[in-house]
Amino acid sequence: MTTHPKLTALAESLPATVPFVGPEAQERQRGRPFRARIGANESGFGPSPAVQAVIAAAAGDVWKYADPENHDLKAALGAHLGIAAENIVIGEGIDGLLGLIVRLFVEAGQPVVTSLGAYPTFNYHVAGFGGRLVTVPYANDREDLNGLLAAVKREDAPLLYLSNPDNPMGTWWEADEISRLIEALPETTMLVLDEAYGETAPASAMPALDVSRPNVLRMRTFSKAYGLAGLRCGYALGETQMIRAFDKVRNHFGVNRVAQTAALAALADQQYLRSVVADVDACRKRIAGIAVANGLVALPSATNFVTFDCGGDGAPALRVMQELIKRDVFVRKPMAPVLDRCIRVSVGPSAEIDLFEQELPEALKAARG
Amino acid sequence: MTTHPKLTALAESLPATVPFVGPEAQERQRGRPFRARIGANESGFGPSPAVQAVIAAAAGDVWKYADPENHDLKAALGAHLGIAAENIVIGEGIDGLLGLIVRLFVEAGQPVVTSLGAYPTFNYHVAGFGGRLVTVPYANDREDLNGLLAAVKREDAPLLYLSNPDNPMGTWWEADEISRLIEALPETTMLVLDEAYGETAPASAMPALDVSRPNVLRMRTFSKAYGLAGLRCGYALGETQMIRAFDKVRNHFGVNRVAQTAALAALADQQYLRSVVADVDACRKRIAGIAVANGLVALPSATNFVTFDCGGDGAPALRVMQELIKRDVFVRKPMAPVLDRCIRVSVGPSAEIDLFEQELPEALKAARG
Repeated sequence: MTTHPKLTALAESLPATVPFVGPEAQERQRGRPFRARIGANESGFGPSPAVQAVIAAAAGDVWKYADPENHDLKAALGAHLGIAAENIVIGEGIDGLLGLIVRLFVEAGQPVVTSLGAYPTFNYHVAGFGGRLVTVPYANDREDLNGLLAAVKREDAPLLYLSNPDNPMGTWWEADEISRLIEALPETTMLVLDEAYGETAPASAMPALDVSRPNVLRMRTFSKAYGLAGLRCGYALGETQMIRAFDKVRNHFGVNRVAQTAALAALADQQYLRSVVADVDACRKRIAGIAVANGLVALPSATNFVTFDCGGDGAPALRVMQELIKRDVFVRKPMAPVLDRCIRVSVGPSAEIDLFEQELPEALKAARG
Repeated sequence: MTTHPKLTALAESLPATVPFVGPEAQERQRGRPFRARIGANESGFGPSPAVQAVIAAAAGDVWKYADPENHDLKAALGAHLGIAAENIVIGEGIDGLLGLIVRLFVEAGQPVVTSLGAYPTFNYHVAGFGGRLVTVPYANDREDLNGLLAAVKREDAPLLYLSNPDNPMGTWWEADEISRLIEALPETTMLVLDEAYGETAPASAMPALDVSRPNVLRMRTFSKAYGLAGLRCGYALGETQMIRAFDKVRNHFGVNRVAQTAALAALADQQYLRSVVADVDACRKRIAGIAVANGLVALPSATNFVTFDCGGDGAPALRVMQELIKRDVFVRKPMAPVLDRCIRVSVGPSAEIDLFEQELPEALKAARG
């Protein structure tokens, strides 16, 4: 006998899951804070001072709902990118937009193609709308473009997820390889091209923006190089009709007012962005150098983190991560087989990287002992 | 021949709609700003000075993702309300949570009961997940509890939406009437009891909190009396298993970091809340007095707005609203038949109410002429 409201059959089948455990939860469990927060691919360099000033100035205005059309931010992004506002949709981070995309394009039971070990939050949304995940293994620590395309065709998949540069490996494809994939895709398959790390990638990795093509959505965010992860502001670029479809299902008043204001200011401060990108590049080199000095192999990175190989299967890397966490250094690691031999260290201020450099040798020793 | 990715059948059937046009869009169309923003049931009294200070202080931290478990805010709310954190879920405003509720409890085609002319955003979510809306007319400008109950039983509806105090009419039921409805509800029907305006209602209108009951979700928000509408922070209170179900589908990192921080500070400043509630009460009386002085009938209100009757059918009220807007006074009105004879004026600072008082006679004259 049912004595409470019934969940839908789909909801009933889902686990009450958390795609990522936050560092705050770990700190609560440990009973003490981390000394280095370099695990969530945040920008420890922080937001621009201009952005911080704008947030402080906007504090008195938070009683007003934000503009549900996100007009000013779309206009500024359009001007910045040389496209029309109607080719842009703003959302509560790329995470929020990914949920809407699955909801818009995937019927329950339909196949969705992604790489094995790619973005867990995307997979969470696919499961959440009853899609069937079809995974393709990475090849040499890069997403396997040919393998993904073959899976799409074999399955007649309505949706393909690809991140370039890639998370969690940090690797990337050059623009012409991505363009080749796009050209070869069935016109009925939507490619979700997640470019969250686009600002820290070489320009040669980013295909020219073509918003006339209905089957590509380019995902961008203010969470990474712009340093606004906590504000939840991402956007998708695409063909007019496809972008307009978001208005069918999005939470129209969902993008926070402070997020819109801060994103506008962040976009306007391209000089700060350039300085962060330079800092990221220098820090990537430093992290890779530390890895190499400790006998590890650092993968090339176009992102704001460096992934490095701890050797063997997943067990050694897991121990290294745990030993670093024990030493108050918050890092994360890929969990899928093959990739799970690695740990992933985000860029950050010198003091935090110093700490990582200092603790890594002991962590490795403890992990091996 | 399809030459673009296909939307799901449900998404294809939906309009690309906006539940509410924002005042910003109207300002863009008009080419000039409003002089009084008293149409969106925001709190023109603004957020607490303590909240503003906290937002400014948090500006440098927005590079960090927020805690996906919303631990601190749930703990503070739990302590404030005398319930456990596991009986609370935080979301991107009540709007965001309403979408999740429909998604969790309504299969496509199932009936969902609400009042005719109640919250458009709830209806938007019901349509968005393929639910079938069953509406019950208001009775004497209040939601018809008996009528809603009868519709739930007749339709065997899994979900019932009720707001108390009510938007858009401002009217309310006493707690014992609401409790009677709850007792009479089928155990398999989830009642979404929207208490967005709870803080400005008489205490006698709020049933005691009972989180042992699986078929009631109480919806609260920081958008109204707390003055944080732009930050998007709402919460639902309910039975442990029902609250846990949100973890199956919510955007775990979706609640903005500034929102969490500001909500914590707002909750801590109960003295400010009390002063706003007193201001709201005084302002409601003043708005009602202005209406009466102009020969209109003001409905009793337990909310942060006053709804008043312009007489006749929807046409006179529409003209009054348009004439006020023409005079730079942003107000809104109910759109459903019977309710649509009214316009709705939100509380606000004296200067904005002064302007309303000054412009109303001319607006009425123009509307009638």
